[in-house]
Amino acid sequence: MNYSELAERLKPSELGMLLALADMPDVYNFSSGYPAEELFPLEEMEQVDREILRREGKLAVQYGSSQGYLPLREKIAARMKARFQADCKAEDILITSGSQQGLSLLGQLFLNKDDVVLVESPTYLGAINAFQINGPRFVEVSTDDKGIIPEKLDAVLQTTDRVKLMYVIPDFQNPAGVTWSLERRKAFMEIVNRHDIPVLEDDPYGELRYSGEPLPSLKALDTKGRIVFLGSFSKVLMPGLRVGWIAANPEILARVNLLRQSVDLQSSSFAQRQVAYYMDMFDLDAHVDQIRVLYRKRRDILCKAVKQYFPEGVTATYPDGGIFVWVTLPEGMDAKAISRRALEQKVAYVPGEAFYPNGGNGNHMRLNFSTMREDRIEAGIRLLGQILKDAL
Amino acid sequence: MNYSELAERLKPSELGMLLALADMPDVYNFSSGYPAEELFPLEEMEQVDREILRREGKLAVQYGSSQGYLPLREKIAARMKARFQADCKAEDILITSGSQQGLSLLGQLFLNKDDVVLVESPTYLGAINAFQINGPRFVEVSTDDKGIIPEKLDAVLQTTDRVKLMYVIPDFQNPAGVTWSLERRKAFMEIVNRHDIPVLEDDPYGELRYSGEPLPSLKALDTKGRIVFLGSFSKVLMPGLRVGWIAANPEILARVNLLRQSVDLQSSSFAQRQVAYYMDMFDLDAHVDQIRVLYRKRRDILCKAVKQYFPEGVTATYPDGGIFVWVTLPEGMDAKAISRRALEQKVAYVPGEAFYPNGGNGNHMRLNFSTMREDRIEAGIRLLGQILKDAL
Repeated sequence: MNYSELAERLKPSELGMLLALADMPDVYNFSSGYPAEELFPLEEMEQVDREILRREGKLAVQYGSSQGYLPLREKIAARMKARFQADCKAEDILITSGSQQGLSLLGQLFLNKDDVVLVESPTYLGAINAFQINGPRFVEVSTDDKGIIPEKLDAVLQTTDRVKLMYVIPDFQNPAGVTWSLERRKAFMEIVNRHDIPVLEDDPYGELRYSGEPLPSLKALDTKGRIVFLGSFSKVLMPGLRVGWIAANPEILARVNLLRQSVDLQSSSFAQRQVAYYMDMFDLDAHVDQIRVLYRKRRDILCKAVKQYFPEGVTATYPDGGIFVWVTLPEGMDAKAISRRALEQKVAYVPGEAFYPNGGNGNHMRLNFSTMREDRIEAGIRLLGQILKDAL
Repeated sequence: MNYSELAERLKPSELGMLLALADMPDVYNFSSGYPAEELFPLEEMEQVDREILRREGKLAVQYGSSQGYLPLREKIAARMKARFQADCKAEDILITSGSQQGLSLLGQLFLNKDDVVLVESPTYLGAINAFQINGPRFVEVSTDDKGIIPEKLDAVLQTTDRVKLMYVIPDFQNPAGVTWSLERRKAFMEIVNRHDIPVLEDDPYGELRYSGEPLPSLKALDTKGRIVFLGSFSKVLMPGLRVGWIAANPEILARVNLLRQSVDLQSSSFAQRQVAYYMDMFDLDAHVDQIRVLYRKRRDILCKAVKQYFPEGVTATYPDGGIFVWVTLPEGMDAKAISRRALEQKVAYVPGEAFYPNGGNGNHMRLNFSTMREDRIEAGIRLLGQILKDAL
């Protein structure tokens, strides 16, 4: 078979195999990106599903708008203000099948082969995969514990041609767990406005804060319509419905909508209503509060266990929110090699290398704390600590 | 904003505006591609939704496999044999968010810019849109009332470079309503095997036959793994769930699966179960029989009214299935200009030009018969007949 250039860029990932192995029931699974399923509001969903069919009947299973179900877009616009401090109207919102689709659509709209996309170093693996199919060059911009470093970004922009898009995760970054300070957000917007590049702000975890004060999204600080915001219900409600959204200026959104029609027409009419009716009939804010209580506890237990059991010379972030802790091993240690031995002892994590599009940085690991019971988090970290001591 | 080449290829379509106008309640709407919503099994769906949550609970709303929910893939594999005469196993099936997504994924996997995709002339508008984003050259192959003309296809293949993909709709074609004869199917496979090109067989209407005998799909006649089959539940169950499938050889399917992970991870876990549980708890074959009874009646009424009310010199197909009749006006008549006048009198249809990727052919119209009550079909065609007489 004679495939396209794009097809030749698709590589089966070692990570996919690791995630499959990690999914065994007796594995201490720190490699997941799943939300805690014990909090899914299943009884509420039974009421929601019935109500959808009673109130809307056939409309709920017929074709619908490619931009998305209007009452859901209205609720999201209100939530953009309440939760992300950004002014949006329903017509600024397009419903996607999860934020992965948002990443893919925006990558296609802005990136030609050999164009440059700027990303934080490290950055989200799913975004690397989504952009990769367009064949761009990834340029990584340094970050520290306050987020992206403005001087580094400015320097990259002054010396790099063909920068067409920048991708960032300012809240509880995946994988590094970092949250950008307000000063950094403002400095970032000043630079972006000066250099005139579109920015994709990915914020799937923004509502999951366990310490510190909420900060405005970049979208809230955007005065020139350059920020495209990606939101998702996967982490605050249920991921299997595949409902996320894009908030963007009308010119960009019109192109997203046209592309969407070619790509898959629309998101499930029923799934969009499942989210909208849930928000109507129940209290999503209260549900998010429940998630925050549970995840705060799990974060604290994981971070405490890391301090207690990991060998000296190993450092870890203490994230203010989200679902990941980022661990740095002493320079020269190989987190991937260790992950193979760890898996034999039934401990799984994601080696950090996967989050650097240009490779290298073999001494990091990403640990998830959203899916396991607290006692298993503690036992798993103790075991992983022993594995790390043996590897040293 | 500085968009990609791909983005520059997206053009807002006049057709979108027409379809929006046609959606008004008092319009005689022959422009639709929607199924008859009065047949949606809504009471059954209420039971289905409840049973999903009871039997599977959290699994039904958690992330799932990118290839798709295994019990659904097993049911589809069995249906490929029962309804399309093709031998498939569950591992040969990947669930898509409607067949539009299948068109898009396969276009991306096979077409580079300036490559050639062969299509029937005319062909399905949604496929043109899906392929268009890759910037290919469309070469149209002539068809007659028995389907694609083998000699024409052979000639095109012998004189055309860079043919990377062929796209066909052998059953009740959209828009032309033509069904390929068995002889044509066999001749087609012989040519395709000789020239070694992958073929996308799109079959959303295959189960909706109202006259004549079922014929084997191309996939059933495929001995070399060259046919990629696209199926859909949109026309036999409900389109708003967005559940379709790809059946293909393992090598192609593995690439589809990788691309799918970058594009949007997976289809809605819940929507996939809605289809699978419906097939488990109820009788989809009996439901399809109901649809066939209704659509057969509507086809007959539309075709009879066309004969009775359309002026001499206008011809129309009498399709053995599907949901469209294709009308040919006398050479030189402009179906698009007439459609504007028709819309003023509250009659909507799709001018045929949109189905020719290289333009021209202004004297055709596509008429849908699946959505309107029988009395409105008759009244609408009578009115359209008068409009055509006035235009002559």
